[in-house]
Amino acid sequence: MTLGRYQVKDKGEWKLDRHDPDDNSLCSDKKKAAERLRELKADLAEQQQLLYASNEYGLLLVLQAIDAGGKDGTIRHVMSGVNPQGCHVSSFKAPSAVEANHDYLWRIHHSVAARGRFVIFNRSHYEDVLVVRVHPEFLPPWAARRKNLWQERFEQINNFEKHLVENNIIIVKCFLHISKDEQRQRFERRLKDPARNWKFAAADVNERRHWDQYMEAFEDAFRHTSTDWAPWYIIPADRKWYRDLVIAELLVKTLKELKLSFPKGDAEELEKIVIPD
Amino acid sequence: MTLGRYQVKDKGEWKLDRHDPDDNSLCSDKKKAAERLRELKADLAEQQQLLYASNEYGLLLVLQAIDAGGKDGTIRHVMSGVNPQGCHVSSFKAPSAVEANHDYLWRIHHSVAARGRFVIFNRSHYEDVLVVRVHPEFLPPWAARRKNLWQERFEQINNFEKHLVENNIIIVKCFLHISKDEQRQRFERRLKDPARNWKFAAADVNERRHWDQYMEAFEDAFRHTSTDWAPWYIIPADRKWYRDLVIAELLVKTLKELKLSFPKGDAEELEKIVIPD
Repeated sequence: MTLGRYQVKDKGEWKLDRHDPDDNSLCSDKKKAAERLRELKADLAEQQQLLYASNEYGLLLVLQAIDAGGKDGTIRHVMSGVNPQGCHVSSFKAPSAVEANHDYLWRIHHSVAARGRFVIFNRSHYEDVLVVRVHPEFLPPWAARRKNLWQERFEQINNFEKHLVENNIIIVKCFLHISKDEQRQRFERRLKDPARNWKFAAADVNERRHWDQYMEAFEDAFRHTSTDWAPWYIIPADRKWYRDLVIAELLVKTLKELKLSFPKGDAEELEKIVIPD
Repeated sequence: MTLGRYQVKDKGEWKLDRHDPDDNSLCSDKKKAAERLRELKADLAEQQQLLYASNEYGLLLVLQAIDAGGKDGTIRHVMSGVNPQGCHVSSFKAPSAVEANHDYLWRIHHSVAARGRFVIFNRSHYEDVLVVRVHPEFLPPWAARRKNLWQERFEQINNFEKHLVENNIIIVKCFLHISKDEQRQRFERRLKDPARNWKFAAADVNERRHWDQYMEAFEDAFRHTSTDWAPWYIIPADRKWYRDLVIAELLVKTLKELKLSFPKGDAEELEKIVIPD
């Protein structure tokens, strides 16, 4: 799979509307995609074992999306099958009072993947240049007074991620890209289905009024934070099966490029071991 | 499955050697067990979704065993398939200097399951009445001076667990019971297999010299901490497939007894929601 087409490149000129949320150009056959996903999930489970055993790299998957964009579903469909020992999901909701009194990367840093681990961020530090940008009323006064706040934050984020990558934490950032119409359909389904409407809040629906502002905030954020060390991928996400496939391909490709293997036991050392009676 | 036979009962008189590590009396057919495990894993994934959605109870699985007893394997075989969002494994190794300066339940409490979550303890607070009992040289002087240290700790643990259960955190405690001969065979396999010997340390093998002391410590701990609110189960673990089956049955049974369901959305509230254009 040529995943490069989904990467955010030529940063200054890059536009979100270059990307079609309904794209399925790498695989148009849903049944084939399901088969391939099964293979990829087995590969992912195997690679994660190697990641854990070799203990050299950590893997951090950052998932961002608009409401109903499919973050929870992606985690359930792609990551079930991975050994939960060594895999952890951190969900970042509105910060607590204590968290809000720290810089916005404080709680994030604490949850970053350790070497040997695979951590999934369901939302992330990017909320602080996304929802907070659409709702500047959430900013504390000292931050609201800074003239270049967003530019500063983009640089802070880039430097933070560079630090992580230089310390062997691999970062994969995915935006689940759905159309405005697809969001409506998903909201309607959630309203009707009793197995879904428990997670439904009127507040989510109201955020839809800010759709255009969100898309501008996403676009600006991706332009400024798609770096060589931690590029953004725009995942076509109107079709859930295609979204899952692309993310699974991306994760497996990223891990295989690390050429992980089980560390060799020290042969001399092992030879000396005598198992007591 | 009648799992009651594996529960630690009549505490004062209970003995570990009542339990056969090679027992498979509830299912002697390995192939049938594999089929049943597949069903149970699907049930477990479904129940965990309900646990998460209903957000009423948390589930804490405590796994204890001697080295090579199969804690990691149990987690991989039984828990892969559970959505990692809502499921977390905490492994308790030798405490850090900061942790050791706190009471031994401090780090444990921090990692306990929140409501809605399923947490697996790979080792636990029980290490502080097991390995520390076999190696009293690990005790700080103030603790070594206490005359009734173990009895005090058993009561502290029982009260701590009671507190959790009264706050809707369900506790399932499993001892993976292997024979001394099975441990030898597993050590030998680990020494030979390059995919296993990375996790092999000479120190593990040496602990085998203390086998009898460990078994005494296990026996005494289970006698004193198998409570109505958090009973111990002795899982026959010489056969990995049987061990996995029994633990999966136990987890699914425990969750189904909670009669979890998706919370109902507030119908009136939902009716009022209008999705903006």
